[in-house]
Amino acid sequence: MHIKIVGLHAPNAPRLRALLGPTHEVEALDAFPKDGPICADVVVSNSVSDYEAARIQCRLLQVPGAGWEQVACEALPGATAVCNVHGHEVPIAEFTIHALLEHFVQLWQYPAQLDAQAWAQAYANRAQHDEAYGKTLAIVGFGHIGQEIARRAKALGMHVVAVTRSGKPTAPALADEFAAVSELDAVLAHARALVLCCPLDENTRGLIGARQLALLPPQALLVNVARAEVVDEQALYEALRDHRLGRAVLDVWFQYPKKGQPPVPPSRWPLHALPNVRATPHISAMTPALLERRYSFMASNILRLHAGQPLRNVIRPPQ
Amino acid sequence: MHIKIVGLHAPNAPRLRALLGPTHEVEALDAFPKDGPICADVVVSNSVSDYEAARIQCRLLQVPGAGWEQVACEALPGATAVCNVHGHEVPIAEFTIHALLEHFVQLWQYPAQLDAQAWAQAYANRAQHDEAYGKTLAIVGFGHIGQEIARRAKALGMHVVAVTRSGKPTAPALADEFAAVSELDAVLAHARALVLCCPLDENTRGLIGARQLALLPPQALLVNVARAEVVDEQALYEALRDHRLGRAVLDVWFQYPKKGQPPVPPSRWPLHALPNVRATPHISAMTPALLERRYSFMASNILRLHAGQPLRNVIRPPQ
Repeated sequence: MHIKIVGLHAPNAPRLRALLGPTHEVEALDAFPKDGPICADVVVSNSVSDYEAARIQCRLLQVPGAGWEQVACEALPGATAVCNVHGHEVPIAEFTIHALLEHFVQLWQYPAQLDAQAWAQAYANRAQHDEAYGKTLAIVGFGHIGQEIARRAKALGMHVVAVTRSGKPTAPALADEFAAVSELDAVLAHARALVLCCPLDENTRGLIGARQLALLPPQALLVNVARAEVVDEQALYEALRDHRLGRAVLDVWFQYPKKGQPPVPPSRWPLHALPNVRATPHISAMTPALLERRYSFMASNILRLHAGQPLRNVIRPPQ
Repeated sequence: MHIKIVGLHAPNAPRLRALLGPTHEVEALDAFPKDGPICADVVVSNSVSDYEAARIQCRLLQVPGAGWEQVACEALPGATAVCNVHGHEVPIAEFTIHALLEHFVQLWQYPAQLDAQAWAQAYANRAQHDEAYGKTLAIVGFGHIGQEIARRAKALGMHVVAVTRSGKPTAPALADEFAAVSELDAVLAHARALVLCCPLDENTRGLIGARQLALLPPQALLVNVARAEVVDEQALYEALRDHRLGRAVLDVWFQYPKKGQPPVPPSRWPLHALPNVRATPHISAMTPALLERRYSFMASNILRLHAGQPLRNVIRPPQ
């Protein structure tokens, strides 16, 4: 098989080569050629424009991640299958559970340096922290990520409410309640923590606005590992600044650095400078194990294509 | 019923009074009287000397915590039952899982303030962190606390090895392997995290010495929520200082503040000042929910005594 790995993921060509063995050819390209046909058995890329898609001649376009919003699927030849790959649900769930426990266990209230004086004082007036146990956790979006968060939160003894478009119970063992997004107001009023892990689309853009934030209890925690725009930017800033929302852990942002452009802050509002915000640079899924899992999956999908076996994670079958 | 609540827990008398209702009498005493008989239906205290025990005339000595090492049981009258109460396993398990995730997710490597410059740099060179998923966790002591830690660690996808005196599988669904303490060396060699939650006794004092610490992988995490003396103090300091042990989260200490004495540091070695130590002032179980759970349990035990029903959590039955 001849595989072209193109764009951001090109530096991972040696990893794919090692997994596929010497009988397959893995070619790394920083970018698609400016014109002419793009021929291979398999193209690995997470960004394909209309013009690039129209010139691609391959049997499989393997997206090296979960999101394919930057792939012009409709402009690809009908014979090309498109597949994606998951595996980020594990590190994102761990990031989220860490954020939840950090919020409830509140270790920041204890002295950072436990010298003799601090020890005597801290022990005499031992402060109390809170428990995740028994608290209600609302999870908006109940796909791979939401379900892995729920599995861990249930083991913590949390009351898990899964909010989905339809509210129909999917994976019923993992949540205590299922609610439709139309019932979100009632869910928010009881949620001590709200985790956003839904896709960004016309139904979820701005889903959490000033009114929704006001419904949450004032000590609540918001964790966003979805896309920043699921939340209204100004409303989020004002709720946190005025302590109408307890705390936020934000891994996704409203403004991203762009090559060759001057640096921008992650938000037009100084969200990242508030003491009750933990701002992380879109790293919740960034683990070596994620790459291992994803490249193993992609190599096995390429070998399935080679062997004439059905592909896995097909998001657009050949037409 | 007449209940005397004596010592450190005396300030909780109003809580017990509210739970028992006005037909029972709850008397709060800062300390036992210096001489003469101590008469009540129930005495609530976690510290009873030989001389105090010999003067007690009651049907139930209810210890308001899990540990009864400060209660001179053998000096109590034969007719007195002794009961304890748990409930701390939930906050201690949450503290421990927080410590594990903090170690693996490593958020400290990301900039604390995500301004425009930091954001551009952090996004361009996104650092990788690790996962708890798939890592081996050794838990020494598999009572209430160990089992609650295991339940949560299993949901994280960790490989849980429970180390107990006999190595016999108790609560087999909660651990992947059981090992006897005599097999500890082999367990340590594969453990990416070691949690100590065993009682302190002649078998566990100094259980983790220089040799045992050297067997752990150099990036391993040690969490101690048992008693400090389960670990050799100097060996622990030197292993952490020399980075032969990755990190430690220590909630229990070698020296405690004593009333009327000058402040002492928590260890004779400057453990608490090492950058790879998180030192907390014995607070892992300190939550309002713990007190609620414990006093509800104690009130129900007192009402059981009143109604002639069998007591719960009997650690010494009437003889």
